[in-house]
Amino acid sequence: MLNAADVHSTVRNFGMTYLNTIHKTWVLSRLAIELSETPLEHDPLTIETWVENAMKYFTKRNWAITSADGTKTYGYGKSIWAMIDTETRSPQDILAIHDGKIKDYLYPEKECPIAEVSRVMFPSHSENVDEESFVVKYSDIDVNGHLNSMKYVDHVLDTFSTDHYREYHLQRLEIAYVAEGHYGDTIVMQHVQEDEFTHSYRLVRRAEEKDTELCRVKLRFIKR
Amino acid sequence: MLNAADVHSTVRNFGMTYLNTIHKTWVLSRLAIELSETPLEHDPLTIETWVENAMKYFTKRNWAITSADGTKTYGYGKSIWAMIDTETRSPQDILAIHDGKIKDYLYPEKECPIAEVSRVMFPSHSENVDEESFVVKYSDIDVNGHLNSMKYVDHVLDTFSTDHYREYHLQRLEIAYVAEGHYGDTIVMQHVQEDEFTHSYRLVRRAEEKDTELCRVKLRFIKR
Repeated sequence: MLNAADVHSTVRNFGMTYLNTIHKTWVLSRLAIELSETPLEHDPLTIETWVENAMKYFTKRNWAITSADGTKTYGYGKSIWAMIDTETRSPQDILAIHDGKIKDYLYPEKECPIAEVSRVMFPSHSENVDEESFVVKYSDIDVNGHLNSMKYVDHVLDTFSTDHYREYHLQRLEIAYVAEGHYGDTIVMQHVQEDEFTHSYRLVRRAEEKDTELCRVKLRFIKR
Repeated sequence: MLNAADVHSTVRNFGMTYLNTIHKTWVLSRLAIELSETPLEHDPLTIETWVENAMKYFTKRNWAITSADGTKTYGYGKSIWAMIDTETRSPQDILAIHDGKIKDYLYPEKECPIAEVSRVMFPSHSENVDEESFVVKYSDIDVNGHLNSMKYVDHVLDTFSTDHYREYHLQRLEIAYVAEGHYGDTIVMQHVQEDEFTHSYRLVRRAEEKDTELCRVKLRFIKR
């Protein structure tokens, strides 16, 4: 889905390749994915993506995941992206790029029938917070030296057993990115199970002085 | 490379799909990969694969990794496969399948200019063995519930820092598979650095009574 987003923005001259020349880049801020069914091994897929809306500091990008022949829909995705300056890390005016040309690429009416991507709240005051941690390794990082966005998800999903996945299907995944992890970081995954089907996580970088929040994740399972 | 092998054997009716119907399967026994150069992101590749030889209990399968247009060779692979009964795990006579039809698919003369895949010896008596361990998680396992063959490699390569990869290029990787890892196993990676460029590993499942050897790995780096 992220590769499709990259191709889609690149061919419209809003991709990382162009943005890097003006010291800007896209940052994934929030992501929600819902799958009503999981594709099987070797199933050919089509990932469709479009921009629903573009504001000064955010764009909304959606996805539809279907079988390659389009007869079956597996699920949908929604996301929110910011544009930042690669040196100062400050938010950039998206509508100032190519004189607001992004407005020509919006499909606000195209249907994406899943709940909006939320801020993903973590129930900090719960008495049932448990913790598991991992250290960021070589295979976790992306080309920028940051913990790869999808690896947060892998590590969270790895807190469940194979038995859990036999019993439950992951229906909805939601993640809000706050700060970046780096090689060698010890990352603590705080976890609260809210009910049989709902699990919330907060990932923090543990340092002597204080914890830094990296992301919040919410998972909703259904019985298989 | 393993997907290419799967496709190549499947279209010749020697794939897992057919073998499962007669309660047999392929098991990767040894693998060597040499890369003179690493493809860059988005580089289109061609993976070519062929069977060099087939004996009663083993086949030798090779690969060539080139740019999609064939003008540049990135590297080669060699491997040894056994066929086993899925229930008894005992070795099966490969030449008995389809009346020895595999003999029609051999290309013994096709060049694969890297060193043979060895038994991969681990210098057990070295005084410089250090250890690092990991627990097999959900994302580590394959459809059979075994530690995925390539995940052994990921975990071994994760013992090196990003700085190491900036200084050294992994030129040759060799692995000999002995036994299977399972979900929840604690796996100890014993490591000996033999010289500046050569690292040997033995992965063992740690249990109270005794260690079980799962695989041996040898890596050869060169200076970038």
